[in-house]
Amino acid sequence: VRLHVVNPTITTGREGDSRLAYARAAGAHTEITISTLRYGPSSVESRHDVVLATPAVIQAALAAEAELADAIVVDCMLDPGVRAAREVCGVPTIGPGEAAMRLAAILGQSFSIICPGQVQEFMMRDQARRFGVAHRLASVRSLGIPVLELDDDPTRTLAATVTVAARCVREDHAHVIVLGCTSLAGKAPLIDQALADQGAPAIVIDPPSAATRALETMVAMGLTQSLRTYPRRPEKPRIWPDDPSVTTPL
Amino acid sequence: VRLHVVNPTITTGREGDSRLAYARAAGAHTEITISTLRYGPSSVESRHDVVLATPAVIQAALAAEAELADAIVVDCMLDPGVRAAREVCGVPTIGPGEAAMRLAAILGQSFSIICPGQVQEFMMRDQARRFGVAHRLASVRSLGIPVLELDDDPTRTLAATVTVAARCVREDHAHVIVLGCTSLAGKAPLIDQALADQGAPAIVIDPPSAATRALETMVAMGLTQSLRTYPRRPEKPRIWPDDPSVTTPL
Amino acid sequence: VRLHVVNPTITTGREGDSRLAYARAAGAHTEITISTLRYGPSSVESRHDVVLATPAVIQAALAAEAELADAIVVDCMLDPGVRAAREVCGVPTIGPGEAAMRLAAILGQSFSIICPGQVQEFMMRDQARRFGVAHRLASVRSLGIPVLELDDDPTRTLAATVTVAARCVREDHAHVIVLGCTSLAGKAPLIDQALADQGAPAIVIDPPSAATRALETMVAMGLTQSLRTYPRRPEKPRIWPDDPSVTTPL
Amino acid sequence: VRLHVVNPTITTGREGDSRLAYARAAGAHTEITISTLRYGPSSVESRHDVVLATPAVIQAALAAEAELADAIVVDCMLDPGVRAAREVCGVPTIGPGEAAMRLAAILGQSFSIICPGQVQEFMMRDQARRFGVAHRLASVRSLGIPVLELDDDPTRTLAATVTVAARCVREDHAHVIVLGCTSLAGKAPLIDQALADQGAPAIVIDPPSAATRALETMVAMGLTQSLRTYPRRPEKPRIWPDDPSVTTPL
Amino acid sequence: VRLHVVNPTITTGREGDSRLAYARAAGAHTEITISTLRYGPSSVESRHDVVLATPAVIQAALAAEAELADAIVVDCMLDPGVRAAREVCGVPTIGPGEAAMRLAAILGQSFSIICPGQVQEFMMRDQARRFGVAHRLASVRSLGIPVLELDDDPTRTLAATVTVAARCVREDHAHVIVLGCTSLAGKAPLIDQALADQGAPAIVIDPPSAATRALETMVAMGLTQSLRTYPRRPEKPRIWPDDPSVTTPL
Amino acid sequence: VRLHVVNPTITTGREGDSRLAYARAAGAHTEITISTLRYGPSSVESRHDVVLATPAVIQAALAAEAELADAIVVDCMLDPGVRAAREVCGVPTIGPGEAAMRLAAILGQSFSIICPGQVQEFMMRDQARRFGVAHRLASVRSLGIPVLELDDDPTRTLAATVTVAARCVREDHAHVIVLGCTSLAGKAPLIDQALADQGAPAIVIDPPSAATRALETMVAMGLTQSLRTYPRRPEKPRIWPDDPSVTTPL
Repeated sequence: VRLHVVNPTITTGREGDSRLAYARAAGAHTEITISTLRYGPSSVESRHDVVLATPAVIQAALAAEAELADAIVVDCMLDPGVRAAREVCGVPTIGPGEAAMRLAAILGQSFSIICPGQVQEFMMRDQARRFGVAHRLASVRSLGIPVLELDDDPTRTLAATVTVAARCVREDHAHVIVLGCTSLAGKAPLIDQALADQGAPAIVIDPPSAATRALETMVAMGLTQSLRTYPRRPEKPRIWPDDPSVTTPL
Repeated sequence: VRLHVVNPTITTGREGDSRLAYARAAGAHTEITISTLRYGPSSVESRHDVVLATPAVIQAALAAEAELADAIVVDCMLDPGVRAAREVCGVPTIGPGEAAMRLAAILGQSFSIICPGQVQEFMMRDQARRFGVAHRLASVRSLGIPVLELDDDPTRTLAATVTVAARCVREDHAHVIVLGCTSLAGKAPLIDQALADQGAPAIVIDPPSAATRALETMVAMGLTQSLRTYPRRPEKPRIWPDDPSVTTPL
Repeated sequence: VRLHVVNPTITTGREGDSRLAYARAAGAHTEITISTLRYGPSSVESRHDVVLATPAVIQAALAAEAELADAIVVDCMLDPGVRAAREVCGVPTIGPGEAAMRLAAILGQSFSIICPGQVQEFMMRDQARRFGVAHRLASVRSLGIPVLELDDDPTRTLAATVTVAARCVREDHAHVIVLGCTSLAGKAPLIDQALADQGAPAIVIDPPSAATRALETMVAMGLTQSLRTYPRRPEKPRIWPDDPSVTTPL
Repeated sequence: VRLHVVNPTITTGREGDSRLAYARAAGAHTEITISTLRYGPSSVESRHDVVLATPAVIQAALAAEAELADAIVVDCMLDPGVRAAREVCGVPTIGPGEAAMRLAAILGQSFSIICPGQVQEFMMRDQARRFGVAHRLASVRSLGIPVLELDDDPTRTLAATVTVAARCVREDHAHVIVLGCTSLAGKAPLIDQALADQGAPAIVIDPPSAATRALETMVAMGLTQSLRTYPRRPEKPRIWPDDPSVTTPL
Repeated sequence: VRLHVVNPTITTGREGDSRLAYARAAGAHTEITISTLRYGPSSVESRHDVVLATPAVIQAALAAEAELADAIVVDCMLDPGVRAAREVCGVPTIGPGEAAMRLAAILGQSFSIICPGQVQEFMMRDQARRFGVAHRLASVRSLGIPVLELDDDPTRTLAATVTVAARCVREDHAHVIVLGCTSLAGKAPLIDQALADQGAPAIVIDPPSAATRALETMVAMGLTQSLRTYPRRPEKPRIWPDDPSVTTPL
Repeated sequence: VRLHVVNPTITTGREGDSRLAYARAAGAHTEITISTLRYGPSSVESRHDVVLATPAVIQAALAAEAELADAIVVDCMLDPGVRAAREVCGVPTIGPGEAAMRLAAILGQSFSIICPGQVQEFMMRDQARRFGVAHRLASVRSLGIPVLELDDDPTRTLAATVTVAARCVREDHAHVIVLGCTSLAGKAPLIDQALADQGAPAIVIDPPSAATRALETMVAMGLTQSLRTYPRRPEKPRIWPDDPSVTTPL
């Protein structure tokens, strides 16, 4: 499976980490490619960021499909542009948010999502309701750390995550924790262990892995999103700023 | 009230109609301004169109607020960019979709939405569920006419709307009809009459009027969307294609 | 718009305040008339009060329509008699409860309602569920002050409201506050300010204003409640009391 | 058990039938008394009728409790005044609507309600939603016969009921039928047989019997409605009509 | 009514208590028989216990019907095997869980369930959702006492129940308490009194009594579960371990 | 991944087909083992069948875990014993029903399930509600062929499936079809093609493949069901019929 990861930001330098994040649980024959947006926000943590990110996400998805990607993931818990990309791409497309929440609903009675900032809370609740898992959502809690500072002090971020996760388990009665911070990718086993050490054990889900596996599932089954739900966009005039080469693929 | 209407497309030539549409039910002191996108799609009828439209919608909303608009409406039943605009604008912002659906739920037991094309069905159902009125949604039916052709033959569009509306009343037991075609703005009384003539009377809602009035309500009450639900975007790097003057306001 | 306010109680002396409450956010050409019940309860704070109030509410609504009112509001957060009045009146009819809750759902992620007494809690929750906004209802809290004592010490009532509202914001995570006490009409800005001063800012909704504007909206749009949802009552025998001995057991 | 049946209308002459209806499934030691309203509507088939009926229903309930009734039922599928009566009466109180719908949810996957007229549809749907059984409600269908004409031609009413019930079974896939016409009390076995003969068998519920048994259950268990949910009404001024000139407009 | 109680465990010695429990609120002519499983678990407090208990529950139900029982109850709050028994038995069948939860929803705004151990929490929540009363469920709390130890120290069990019930009332705002421990059968009045003494009054439901009455209701009304919802099992090969006499009735 | 498939019936002779069914979409290193029940029903198509199948399903799951299986699937759309097996097994366990429904919710707006017989309809609806996807369930339709006859005439079964699937698409507006017949495993591409040929294209999901992939996902991510949601069964007496070697592992 040629899996393309769209980094929905202009921030470079995390390609290696991202590749690792999506490869961690991948099948033997999955190859991962990554692209970074040419324009857009430096992080996606608000509805406004989503708006700025999604046009280039679509472009990146189209480019990936043109280069024969078998599946596309948008690397952000808010799943920016995923539903629009499903209209323009024939290949399976998902975000780690949907993949992780649906997996959480299988694994336990109740789950909590840990976000970088409080601003994502309503967006996450809205998504949970959309996916039909709102009755399983124990809580959405935030680290209080802006996305762009998550990597500044990884030890502190990890510690904060464990502290918040333990509150989700103890106060909100979460049985499953969904890590809503991409920079925590791969830390699920560490957090799992730390929670157990604190007497607050929980299942800890790493959303990038959930997304990789969801896409491999669709590819292996020969399935993709429904053309009736996500019909092809019709031909019609569009203008896109300044660069003609940008205009066309949109 | 200085009400700014953002046309979320690049299609010009309907400014007069739009002004009329949003003025129709406006209070005595409401002034209406209209802007058209500099780039984006020529119509908004899919998730992909929404993605292309929203960045310039945000720019238009910011520009309107800078020019002292008191309220902002995005002129499309899919409410593209409305929630993101609420993050960046201090003034009340809404779309005709939300305004019309909430009004429909007041006026009757069940309502139907008539859309130009079938592709909007899932998006409308998703919105109804988000607004908490899904249990009142009798049906979503489409005219089978692409948005850009709605104005080609207004008589045919009107006739098709009446035919579809009558089916909503008779087969889906709708008590209220929400007109999901902006080019039908102002036609509510005609359709209302035609339905009554056919023995299928219903309340017919003109969404632009509902939006105007919802915004006037907020302005008159001195209210706007919650800053906790829609917090201000933080300062951080962003790149926007090619034109430096575009970059800044985003 | 000739807007008639039905005071669903026999308590007089607040006409001036009520007129002001419903005029506060009214459009330029809205005239307000007020009627008080000839019989019924002295306040409406229970299901029993609702039962006693509604027959005279219907009478008042019919009388108002006969005197060419364009719209009718029943001045109580429990919306007593509103749905029955919609059957007998052709003109738009609403209560501040429905108007305020639907507006709250537009303005923020979660809202709380502040009631005079605890007895209204279940009734408010039931209404929220009926309106489809129960998933947005953060809490219903009470002042613990009987309705008839709310005006005894306005300063104390205001202070109690601020205290309770701050708990709604801090403990229940409400982003929007709906004031469920008619004697607090017009105090929304004061409470808004007090909450901000306490570091617990929230959007504060004044339900009478929401009701006035909802009715003006319907009138301006030429709409009223659906005759299919609220059909005209048939002709049939009815008896209504003229015997003083009936009075006592109620 | 001394079970008091409040006929929520002024229509006399059906006392014998009503007594039989509520006695049909009663326990050995249940005695049934019946009262008819001194004022109110001649039938209850709309929200307006409910408003007119409920004050005297409360009076009748209070009188019954004063005469040592052990339980009270309001003889109408719309359960008029039941929740208010629960505030003023200490003894268990219910309506056949709630009793029958909750029983239907036990007996089968899906149920339909057959009403005299279409106007009750929304009210019934609203009740089903309130009781949490809306996901089991297959349909609400009407006989198209005004309540006061149901007894004019019992054979025709019975035949119409069978015809409508068969449609509920065949077209709406109802497994259980709730008879929403009090004049059909006791006809459940006949209708059950007729449906089976037509090849559309279904469970047929007689709501008065369901109500009797629900009340006997509460009495036998020593339970009544919660005083916290239905608190006692406070002492406060009330006025009730003694002026004949009030009668007309209702 | 010949009411058969299936003890869904192999634990003997509580027959007298069980008979009393189901007889407590029974009608005058109800006779109670009890059977204990020949094989299965010694208590039912997990999904695994349910699996082990249900085959012999079905056998017991079939045997009871063969011996002319009029109704069958499975004596466990988790209602093990009830839905399967409805397929094989013609007579009304229920569990105390469903009977008690539906009664709780009639009696008050919100109810809590008190279970022996925490493991039943998710199962109870799942049942509440299935029955459509999840929006009324204030909480599920556990005593932290394994089922088989509930009778070891009845005084301690009773005291623990009162303590937990008071927390349900005070912290979770429950108006109704459902006792989820069969060994507490008949203790409802004591607990009711203890709660009142502590200033935390609530309605306390004894589930066995609710089940007896629900079944008597169906028998008195001549009703049973729908054959369409619970169709008869077809003839087909089955093997059951070792004892041929076991094989046949299954 | 060592994936163990529990055939929840006593019917032998389909092992090869089942192995193929679960291998079809499996990853490169997945080995599949299959066990058939020693006792139980010959097919699982009712609640009664579920009861008879589940004890031996648990035994088979325990045996598989003892033989170092990495994951367990119960080969039936009704997921018999899956939740109980999660209590006794440490390894990930799922059924094709849950796996397929959750995948369907990702792929399209609405899905239909095609069952062998009508008796599974309520059970499937109940499951959909439990999984939170009921709002996406367009319909459940049956082939009207008993499970044990599905293989009698594979061509006829396939044709019937296509006919029913086309009705799901055309009449129920399903965008995704879930094949609820294990004997149709591997036929998804044929049915997909047939639907497209008939002008009723849809996404067709093969549930065994969905289950295999869901389990591989959990194994690859190092996750399993929550011990808090599915706690280990306590030690306590149990009796199981006749064969002591059976008693122990339960």
